[in-house]
Amino acid sequence: MRDDYESGVGGKDGLELRVWLRLITCFNLMDGAVRQKLHQEYATTLPRFDVLAQLHREDGPLTMGELSRRLMVTNGNVTGLIDRLAREGLVERKPAADDRRRQLVAMTDRGQAFFETMASDHQDWIADMTGDLNAAEKRELFRLLGRLKQSILTPQSDTTEAAE
Amino acid sequence: MRDDYESGVGGKDGLELRVWLRLITCFNLMDGAVRQKLHQEYATTLPRFDVLAQLHREDGPLTMGELSRRLMVTNGNVTGLIDRLAREGLVERKPAADDRRRQLVAMTDRGQAFFETMASDHQDWIADMTGDLNAAEKRELFRLLGRLKQSILTPQSDTTEAAE
Repeated sequence: MRDDYESGVGGKDGLELRVWLRLITCFNLMDGAVRQKLHQEYATTLPRFDVLAQLHREDGPLTMGELSRRLMVTNGNVTGLIDRLAREGLVERKPAADDRRRQLVAMTDRGQAFFETMASDHQDWIADMTGDLNAAEKRELFRLLGRLKQSILTPQSDTTEAAE
Repeated sequence: MRDDYESGVGGKDGLELRVWLRLITCFNLMDGAVRQKLHQEYATTLPRFDVLAQLHREDGPLTMGELSRRLMVTNGNVTGLIDRLAREGLVERKPAADDRRRQLVAMTDRGQAFFETMASDHQDWIADMTGDLNAAEKRELFRLLGRLKQSILTPQSDTTEAAE
């Protein structure tokens, strides 16, 4: 995906479209940098990082179905991610105590330590990339993105599909 | 990809990280809505829309290599996209006037008309999704995203890789 969606946009385009194209540009630049850093410094991928982040937030094991729901990926994809993380010794599968047919995924101690180091670096990368904005600008950007999120989720007049 | 990266984020996370997670959320919501609308209302995809948008901006034919560069996808992927758009009668391949071995891609009249209708709707979808923000908020969001873009592209101290 190209990084700079804004190139070639003329002044005739509406302000809304220019906001959207600039948001795409920022997303692509940051997402690309995070993926590259995860690959270079931790030999891992964003989907694997996301699985560990979900287990870390839960602070306990999750079922495959629940992981799949939180990651918004199919069960098949989660199975592949868990296979890989299990081979790396970062997670383990175990049967649920109350129903041994139900399989849970839990972080290992090694996975926990690995994730914490990586998450701390991840936070530093984001802080670096946003470093030119002062605290007031970051708060205002956070607020305006919150307004945008609400706006996207609020159906406008007759275009209710946009909110799904 | 899950829509709401913010769920489960605690107050202990830094402001920078919360800005980034909210930006991901807005991107996923808008990108998903645009892809869904393109599919439902025009039976097309975002990559095909992007090819037509590049030809429209150029206001003339482009080589496969130039299209590939602008879309930041591989030549192989562009070939598939052009095959599809050609079958739909929206673009056509033709040899360059100055070098008949060099192949150009041009929009057909039908492609031009199709793109203009779709682009007008696309602008309306974006306007709807951002409709809760007033003009001053949109201008401020545009400005702050510009500051963010510059910040991402500016190497901070010793983390020069972040800017690539």
